Amino acid sequence: MAHIRYDYRTLTAFCEEAFTKLGFTKEDSKVITDVLITSDLFGIESHGMQRLTRYDMGIQKGLIHPGAKSEIVFQTPVSAVIDAHDGMGQLAAVNAMNIAIEKAKKSGMAMVTVRNSNHYGIAGYYAKMAADQGLIGFSCTNSEAIMVPTFGRKAMLGSNPMAFAVPADPYPFLFDASTTVVTRGKLEMYNKAEKELPDHWALDCKGHPTHDTGSVLKSIVSKEGGGILPLGGYSEKSGGHKGYGYAMVCEIFSSILSMGLTSCHTNTDGVGGTCHGFMAIDPAVFGNPGEIRKHFSTFLQELRDAPKAQGQTRIYTHGEKEAQSVERIKAEGVPVDVKTVYEMKQMADHAGIDFSAYFGEVSEVEGYHTLY
Amino acid sequence: MAHIRYDYRTLTAFCEEAFTKLGFTKEDSKVITDVLITSDLFGIESHGMQRLTRYDMGIQKGLIHPGAKSEIVFQTPVSAVIDAHDGMGQLAAVNAMNIAIEKAKKSGMAMVTVRNSNHYGIAGYYAKMAADQGLIGFSCTNSEAIMVPTFGRKAMLGSNPMAFAVPADPYPFLFDASTTVVTRGKLEMYNKAEKELPDHWALDCKGHPTHDTGSVLKSIVSKEGGGILPLGGYSEKSGGHKGYGYAMVCEIFSSILSMGLTSCHTNTDGVGGTCHGFMAIDPAVFGNPGEIRKHFSTFLQELRDAPKAQGQTRIYTHGEKEAQSVERIKAEGVPVDVKTVYEMKQMADHAGIDFSAYFGEVSEVEGYHTLY
Repeated sequence: MAHIRYDYRTLTAFCEEAFTKLGFTKEDSKVITDVLITSDLFGIESHGMQRLTRYDMGIQKGLIHPGAKSEIVFQTPVSAVIDAHDGMGQLAAVNAMNIAIEKAKKSGMAMVTVRNSNHYGIAGYYAKMAADQGLIGFSCTNSEAIMVPTFGRKAMLGSNPMAFAVPADPYPFLFDASTTVVTRGKLEMYNKAEKELPDHWALDCKGHPTHDTGSVLKSIVSKEGGGILPLGGYSEKSGGHKGYGYAMVCEIFSSILSMGLTSCHTNTDGVGGTCHGFMAIDPAVFGNPGEIRKHFSTFLQELRDAPKAQGQTRIYTHGEKEAQSVERIKAEGVPVDVKTVYEMKQMADHAGIDFSAYFGEVSEVEGYHTLY
Repeated sequence: MAHIRYDYRTLTAFCEEAFTKLGFTKEDSKVITDVLITSDLFGIESHGMQRLTRYDMGIQKGLIHPGAKSEIVFQTPVSAVIDAHDGMGQLAAVNAMNIAIEKAKKSGMAMVTVRNSNHYGIAGYYAKMAADQGLIGFSCTNSEAIMVPTFGRKAMLGSNPMAFAVPADPYPFLFDASTTVVTRGKLEMYNKAEKELPDHWALDCKGHPTHDTGSVLKSIVSKEGGGILPLGGYSEKSGGHKGYGYAMVCEIFSSILSMGLTSCHTNTDGVGGTCHGFMAIDPAVFGNPGEIRKHFSTFLQELRDAPKAQGQTRIYTHGEKEAQSVERIKAEGVPVDVKTVYEMKQMADHAGIDFSAYFGEVSEVEGYHTLY
C-alpha cells in the first residue's frame, strides 16, 4: 500500500482545524493534535493521523463529548481520581499527568487515575511529560477489550499499554508498549495493507490461533469471541500468562483504582468509559538526581555497546528509535497511508475543511482513486 | 527425575537449623526459611529448597555476609534507600518492604530501594506482605545477568522479576514473573531433569537460538555470551523488545534508584551487589478501600467465568494457582527433587546437622544412590 509524505507542520495545521470543526476549542485542539503528531513523528503510524477518523466517529456516536470538563472527584497530596465525563482522552490525560507532576514535585511521588474517558493515543506521550521535567513518568490506559486471557476465547482485556519514561542522556528512556503481542492499531495497518497476520498474534472465535486479519478485527467489534494474544503468546510455556498479568497491572492502575469500567465493559451500549493511570516520581527522593541520571545513562550506553548477535549491528535502548525518528521524519515528512489520506479527505469534506488548501489535489496520488 | 514428598513443617525445621548453622540468628533463620518454604508451598520449586545449596555456596564464597545489618542511607516520608552491606537478600527485603508499608500507611504510598544485597527468593513474597495488610504491593529485583537484550548475544540483564499484589476475595491478586521467558531456576530444574530446552527460551554464545540446557547454564556462569531470552522471545515481531523493556523497568526501580550495581555488574569479582525495589500503595488514597476491593474481586470473577478456549476448562487469575497450591501441598507434602535431597544431605553433613533425624535414611530413596 502506497504512502504519501506530508510535512508535519501541514498535518498539524490540518489536524488543529479538524478538531475545532469537531467542536473543540483552539487550545484543546492543539493539545489533542500534539499527541497525534508526536505519535507520527515517533514513527508509530498506528496511533497518529490514521486514528483521526476513529475520533470523528467516536464524537458522532456520542462516545466522546467535545465540551466535557475533567473533574477531580477525590484527592490527597499523593493522589487524585478524575472523572473525565466522557471527554476526549488526550485532554483528560494531559490534565491528569500535569496534576501528577505537580503533586510529585511537592510530595515526591503521586498517582492519578481517570475514569469515564476515551482513547488517549500513545501512552508514552504522558510518561514523557514527566521525564521532560526531570521526573520518572508512568502512564497506562485500558481500552476496548481485544486481549484474550490465557486459556480463554473471548477478549476480556484491552491492549492495555503501559509506558515508562526516565530522564537520561543523550535521550530519555521511553518504553511504551501494549501488553498484547501487538496493538489493534497494528492489526488495522495490516488490514489496510491487506496482509495476513504472523503466527502467535491472534485467536479466532473458538480460541484457536488464526492469521485472518479482517475476521479478528470484525470479531473484536462484534464481541463474538476471538482477539489478540497477550505478550508471550498462546501458552504458559512461552509466557502468555505474563502478558496477561501485565494487562492486569494496567487494569489495576486505571479502571480499578478509579472505580471505572474494566476493559470488558468499556465501549458498550453507547458508553466509552476508558480509564487511565498516571504516576510521577521525583528521583530526588532517592538521592542526587544528577548522579542517578548519570548512573542510568552509563547503563544505557553499556547496553548499546554490548556485543551484538551474529548478523545484527545494533542494540537499541527504549526511546532511541523514537528520538531518532523525530529528526528523520521532521526532515523527510510524515508517511501517511493513502487509505488514511482518503479518510482525512472524507472527514474534511464532511466538516467543511478545504482539504486541497493543505494537501493539494489528492486525486493525483497513486492508488488513491481505487478507494472510491 | 524422582521427587520425594516431605512435610513442610519438617523442611521448615531443617531449613531453620541449616541457616543457624550458616551463621544467622534464630530469628533471621526463621525469616529466610519462611520465604523459601512459601515458594515451595506456592508450587514454585525452582525458588524453594532447591536454592538452599546456592545460598550455602554464596556464604562460602563470601558474597553473602550472615552478620550484615541493613542501613538506611537516604529517606523521605515517601521513600528510602537501603544499603544491605552484602547481607542475605531475604532479610534486607523483608526489612525494606516493612519500611515501605509503614511509610505508605502514613503518606499514602512509598518506595524503597536496596543496594548491595543478594538473591532474595520469590519477588511475590514481599509484594504479598503489603496485600496481607490491605495495601497494593510491588517488589522487584535485579540479578546476575542472564537475559540477552534484543539483537544482542551477551547477557546484560537479570531474570529481573517484578511482582504485584492487590487485596481481593476470595484470594489476593498476586502476579510474580521474571521478565525473561523463564527463570534461571527453571533452567536448573530442566538441567536436573536432563531435559532439552523448548524453542524461544535461550540463545547460544553467538546469539543464535539453542536447546542445549547445560551449555546455556555454563555460559551464564562463564559470562562468555549466550543466555535466556526476554519475554516475547527472539524478535521484535513477537515482542522480545517488550520483555527487555520490562527488565529495564525492574532495573530502574532496583539498581538505578538505589545507585547500586546493574545486573551486568553484579556477582562479579567476589561481590554480589544485587539490588531490589519495593513499593506499597494504600488504596484509601483513591477512595473507599472496601469498594475498590469489591470492584476488583468482581472483575477477577468475570475473568474466571469468561468463555474458555476449545479444549480448556479453566481461566486462572494470578495468585489463584498459588493459593490453591498452598492447601494441596500442605496436605500432600512438598515434592523435592532427589538431586536437591542430595544437596541438602551434603550441606547437612558439612554443617554438622543430623539429616536422618529430619528425613530418615535417605539412601533408601529411589534414584538417590546414582548421584554419589
